[in-house]
Amino acid sequence: MTLTYDQEVELVTKLLTASGMSEEDAGIAARVTTHSDFTGVYSHGLSRLTRYLKQFDCGALNPKPDIKIVSEEGSTVVFDCDNGLGTVNVNKAYDTILPKARENGIAIAVGRHSSNIGCAAYYGWRAVKDGVIALITCNTYAFSSPFGGADRMIGTNPISFAVPTNEQYPVVLDISTTNVAMGKIQAAEREGQAIPLGWANDYDGKPTTDPSKAFSLLPIAGHKGYGLAVMVDVLSTLLSKAAAGSDIGLFSKLQPENTGFCVILIDPAKFMPIEEFRNNADYYIRMMKGSRKAEGVEEIFMPGEIEQKKYEQLMKTGISFSENLEQELRSLGEKIGVKF
Amino acid sequence: MTLTYDQEVELVTKLLTASGMSEEDAGIAARVTTHSDFTGVYSHGLSRLTRYLKQFDCGALNPKPDIKIVSEEGSTVVFDCDNGLGTVNVNKAYDTILPKARENGIAIAVGRHSSNIGCAAYYGWRAVKDGVIALITCNTYAFSSPFGGADRMIGTNPISFAVPTNEQYPVVLDISTTNVAMGKIQAAEREGQAIPLGWANDYDGKPTTDPSKAFSLLPIAGHKGYGLAVMVDVLSTLLSKAAAGSDIGLFSKLQPENTGFCVILIDPAKFMPIEEFRNNADYYIRMMKGSRKAEGVEEIFMPGEIEQKKYEQLMKTGISFSENLEQELRSLGEKIGVKF
Repeated sequence: MTLTYDQEVELVTKLLTASGMSEEDAGIAARVTTHSDFTGVYSHGLSRLTRYLKQFDCGALNPKPDIKIVSEEGSTVVFDCDNGLGTVNVNKAYDTILPKARENGIAIAVGRHSSNIGCAAYYGWRAVKDGVIALITCNTYAFSSPFGGADRMIGTNPISFAVPTNEQYPVVLDISTTNVAMGKIQAAEREGQAIPLGWANDYDGKPTTDPSKAFSLLPIAGHKGYGLAVMVDVLSTLLSKAAAGSDIGLFSKLQPENTGFCVILIDPAKFMPIEEFRNNADYYIRMMKGSRKAEGVEEIFMPGEIEQKKYEQLMKTGISFSENLEQELRSLGEKIGVKF
Repeated sequence: MTLTYDQEVELVTKLLTASGMSEEDAGIAARVTTHSDFTGVYSHGLSRLTRYLKQFDCGALNPKPDIKIVSEEGSTVVFDCDNGLGTVNVNKAYDTILPKARENGIAIAVGRHSSNIGCAAYYGWRAVKDGVIALITCNTYAFSSPFGGADRMIGTNPISFAVPTNEQYPVVLDISTTNVAMGKIQAAEREGQAIPLGWANDYDGKPTTDPSKAFSLLPIAGHKGYGLAVMVDVLSTLLSKAAAGSDIGLFSKLQPENTGFCVILIDPAKFMPIEEFRNNADYYIRMMKGSRKAEGVEEIFMPGEIEQKKYEQLMKTGISFSENLEQELRSLGEKIGVKF
């Protein structure tokens, strides 16, 4: 199945409205999912949608959440997202604090009773279009351990950071704080391949190269990545009162996740004329990209640049999805009355 | 030479006032330096002071800077630090935005024409005493390269993050975004030891184990650490108009650094009653520390916990400094009329 951007948005919107979401919310979520695929981040695109559909089906996700502002003081907003889809929640939080960031220079939104926020870079793209800097974090299902620990207590806890530019590609960082995602280990297991040391520990907290024994994902750079993951937990869950660690709802038990997120927006226009900021960002990027290259390297990329080039390419060609994925979506779709 | 905390503060204050700093500023800087040593971070304590004294001596640091607020809009403040000592600059920036964070829930200060900010965890300790969350970044002399590059363009660019608690040790993360500091490589060279792969590349951007050939420090976790270092550059230099990359002043040329910093404070009291936040932080920490331990691990530590335990121990025993360091300080002190 090959889809254009618009076709994927249409398909996802149809599947999500059939799951009970409003046309508007489904459209918002569909754009995040499609963006992920069209920037080459396939792990958070259509393949992730299958999980959302199952979560709606079992009641772990609420298709018509009553997303409420539970507190709004100064430049802060706290949301209770009523177990709605994270991709919609973060967009609404973003919309709410953008005017506050414009007014005060910086603003923060956090949300509880949320769920997977999908491709965090999507919100970064929104920010660069709006000419603001964004820092976005969320916690996730816990597949990693505290440094020195063996229990699953910490998520892959991504950090996304976006910076508007003028002529250069905007900086859009989007990284997890573990070396790999669980999906990569599952893929190795399916293909009967060993995994490199450093990806995961086994149940006893010992390093393993056997994907079937991999239990706990390892943080980037040892205690440093662990520290960054704790930072993400604090911003995303302690400020929002979402669940962290072993309190996160389990999909295997059909529970709502109750994960949390944090969006911080900074308006450079409060620091200097926005054109000056954009030009300075361009200057910085040209400097970095102009560095002498290490042997064998053809080009130095800024964070997010590869994804933006991929987007330009895929918008021309569309994306071919695997037959397996199409089959899975088709059968999930049939259950809720969607025909391809 | 063995010093108590108060004796070190007194000695550093004396050396800095003799360098031309006001009694007040010298006292502020002395507490940051002493804090570093007494939390076991010797790289940023008295040993770092020797560099400051040389920078004052050659004019690269300004002992009586006219630290000016160049813009103050909403919850944002931009400082021009007039080439003063970074440890003083950050304290003043912190003081200025704390009331703004209390009022709006979040506030940000950035500074240009600054210099090394010393032990970033010190400002984190201030934040936890004040009951606020702090995120602190600064750029540094460029000893690292963009991912795939070979030129020195990026600093060790630390990230510090602090969270107040109730009964548990507060979380105080303080990490660089390179695997090691240049000081570790210089120490290996002095001792004629090889360095592990992954610490540094040579001038051509090739991995090296020879400390004498180490040119560029490697970021944590490859492109992920590079991305985080770019984030630190953007917050610390693009918002403040400080120098980044090859524009940073070189100590070898007796130039002021013109590095920058960023301090973001978040007041949890705008999100929930502060006691509730502190208790939730305690709960989170107990959960993490209560994880099953990996084999051979005796205790799981939160970020900054080891430093806080070290502090309790060193406050009882004082610190013995090496004769080499004492000699160097003694001779630097003699030049400016300070007798030990």
